[in-house]
Amino acid sequence: MENQMIIQTETLSEIVAEKITEIIKSRGLVAGDQIPTELELIEMLGVGRSSVREAIKTLVSRNVLEIRRGKGTFICQKPVLPEDPLGLSFTPDKVKTYKDLLAVRMVLEPWMAGEAARNATEEDIRKIYDLCGEVERQILAGEEHMEKDREFHTAIAESTKNEVIPAIIPHIIKSVSLFIEMTHNTLGNETIETHRAICEAIARHDSAAAENAMRNHIRYNEEAIGIKH
Amino acid sequence: MENQMIIQTETLSEIVAEKITEIIKSRGLVAGDQIPTELELIEMLGVGRSSVREAIKTLVSRNVLEIRRGKGTFICQKPVLPEDPLGLSFTPDKVKTYKDLLAVRMVLEPWMAGEAARNATEEDIRKIYDLCGEVERQILAGEEHMEKDREFHTAIAESTKNEVIPAIIPHIIKSVSLFIEMTHNTLGNETIETHRAICEAIARHDSAAAENAMRNHIRYNEEAIGIKH
Repeated sequence: MENQMIIQTETLSEIVAEKITEIIKSRGLVAGDQIPTELELIEMLGVGRSSVREAIKTLVSRNVLEIRRGKGTFICQKPVLPEDPLGLSFTPDKVKTYKDLLAVRMVLEPWMAGEAARNATEEDIRKIYDLCGEVERQILAGEEHMEKDREFHTAIAESTKNEVIPAIIPHIIKSVSLFIEMTHNTLGNETIETHRAICEAIARHDSAAAENAMRNHIRYNEEAIGIKH
Repeated sequence: MENQMIIQTETLSEIVAEKITEIIKSRGLVAGDQIPTELELIEMLGVGRSSVREAIKTLVSRNVLEIRRGKGTFICQKPVLPEDPLGLSFTPDKVKTYKDLLAVRMVLEPWMAGEAARNATEEDIRKIYDLCGEVERQILAGEEHMEKDREFHTAIAESTKNEVIPAIIPHIIKSVSLFIEMTHNTLGNETIETHRAICEAIARHDSAAAENAMRNHIRYNEEAIGIKH
């Protein structure tokens, strides 16, 4: 049923493009690596040559693959997928990349939370609380909460009233999803607790407390992959 | 002559798309505003209806414009242009947006310079020095130096060995070009002086000095638009 829904909204070449991306990931290929030949892809996917060509063209136009004449098709040095706006897939060491992402979050997001506490309007605070409650409900129900989690962090970004922060933070939070299997299902309670602390500090316009709560939130993620403090 | 070169590498609809973007900017239209009608664009640009339609389609697919049926064509809430990766064009108050950009730079880039000082290899240091020299030469010759300036900051981003920083910094530095007319030609000496101080601190692996030099570099930009410290 899910496949049928996809067929209604996506073209065949987009589906084939996604399947090629899955093959690349499942084989652990990284930036700069050569992908299977056209003939291999035709056999693996059971689709025609024209569909594979069309799909590769799509991935080339999206800056994921590049064709080197006479050599084959390769993964770009900085591949960009819609679900990976910063191009962090296909790096050779996922733990290292995730640590690097958390290091950037640790610099930007506590500051952002402090700015949000300074500038959030009553309407912003209501929105942040609502999203906090939604994420909490989804975690407790064992549902997927990445989408609402991103909305929660984006609402904080917007309530800073800095116009550049909301242009960066959603990409960073979206990238977190790429590493979710590293911490999955182990941080439910900590997420609920630290999200609430962030909400309360922003509602009190207490920027030091908001910074601190965000720092704790990110620290739990760091500890989950073995970074000690 | 320059136009001829563009025609060789771009399609007509891309040229018309660029011209429409110029019209939008020159009229001071902002996110959410309606653009001139198809008929007005045909008259203003002296091209056929099909070219204008094709160009608008291109801008819709790039998330710059959106068509509301029965209402007209509008600028997206978060338009993204190749020269504006963070979607900061079309904001109503350019000075405010540039201040916001400098505030984000002030959080990220001194930290980045410190990380670069910790982790730069001899090869990184040579590259940073070379680019610093190039920018300096261009400034002294009165040439356009934004491209090399971006390469200089990107080389620092890469020498941190954090894989996420180089995915963010080039977008931030590219966005700086959007505001260049606010500080243009007034910061030549300060740029030369602070770039050199950044280079020297990174070469000595002195992270505190590198942070400090980067902070001064951004501070000069803030002072140029009237932010006091």
